[in-house]
Amino acid sequence: MSTARRPGRRPGAADTRGEILTAARKVFSEKGYDKATMRGIAREAGVDPALVHHYFANKEGVFAEALQLPVTPDVILPELLGAPRHELGERLVRLLLTVTSDPQAREPVIALMRSAMTNDQARETLREFMSSAMLFRVADALEVPHIRIEAAFAQMFGIIMARYVLRLEPIASADLEEIVELVGPTLQRYLDP
Amino acid sequence: MSTARRPGRRPGAADTRGEILTAARKVFSEKGYDKATMRGIAREAGVDPALVHHYFANKEGVFAEALQLPVTPDVILPELLGAPRHELGERLVRLLLTVTSDPQAREPVIALMRSAMTNDQARETLREFMSSAMLFRVADALEVPHIRIEAAFAQMFGIIMARYVLRLEPIASADLEEIVELVGPTLQRYLDP
Repeated sequence: MSTARRPGRRPGAADTRGEILTAARKVFSEKGYDKATMRGIAREAGVDPALVHHYFANKEGVFAEALQLPVTPDVILPELLGAPRHELGERLVRLLLTVTSDPQAREPVIALMRSAMTNDQARETLREFMSSAMLFRVADALEVPHIRIEAAFAQMFGIIMARYVLRLEPIASADLEEIVELVGPTLQRYLDP
Repeated sequence: MSTARRPGRRPGAADTRGEILTAARKVFSEKGYDKATMRGIAREAGVDPALVHHYFANKEGVFAEALQLPVTPDVILPELLGAPRHELGERLVRLLLTVTSDPQAREPVIALMRSAMTNDQARETLREFMSSAMLFRVADALEVPHIRIEAAFAQMFGIIMARYVLRLEPIASADLEEIVELVGPTLQRYLDP
């Protein structure tokens, strides 16, 4: 059964992917993360759901691309699960700081934090996405209690705020590896079983 | 030499304190934290500088009251300096979580974070206040390198965001002492010499 409203559209047309992302932003903003579905995004975009799955592996992939978020569990998890357990903390700090050191990659993350602090619906959507798609997935894959992954998230959220938004010195200009050495053991402790 | 513009005003009149705070908010917002002075605030309020010192011990005291911030180093430091060194981490976590558990005390802190994320001048003022009046004073009193106190600040900033703004579960509903146990050792490690 196709739910396409515009059956004349060529699948894979140059702008289809962009139109799916536009539709996704609308659906996420109206319904929040948990209640949005791949099918609902397809309906909003006027395409077959199979096409949404063709472009994006899953709902968290659509969300991350719609909001131009630079990291998802699909990026983080292979990096972490392939590492020795005692290196998890420093690897995670290094990965998150490396990704956010690029202003273009960082800006959408900060924009999302900003809107979550000023807008109830954005906060709700971020809360749902962070919990079900990001933190709990990483926590469950690493067999870490949810509250411990949230403490790790809180540490890195604060570091990124202090370094890139508030630009507190000396942390704003510190060498990336100095922060890895400082904060890596904190994340390691939270991630240790 | 008095800089009062309204010499007829009675010192200690019922609304003088409030007028000084109104003047202080204007001066901090125009000049930022570092360039604001007790004398400049007195001039803006039209009172003698001695009166500003009478109501508020120092510039950080005026700032904290003008923005209704619930904690200053004058509150934190006696609590920390009187404690055994190995209890610093858990005491600081307990103190900050206890203070921010009161919505009325918490709201001005969150409002300040919010405006720092959306407004350049507010960000600059918060950055200066955090550095010179808060973090560095605590760091220097405890003989801790500045970057380590910033990592501790980042952890607690993130915890307060996750618990009270994003309201991520389970951390939002967790017992205060559970968070003290989880995060205390992190702060202890940053504060250890």
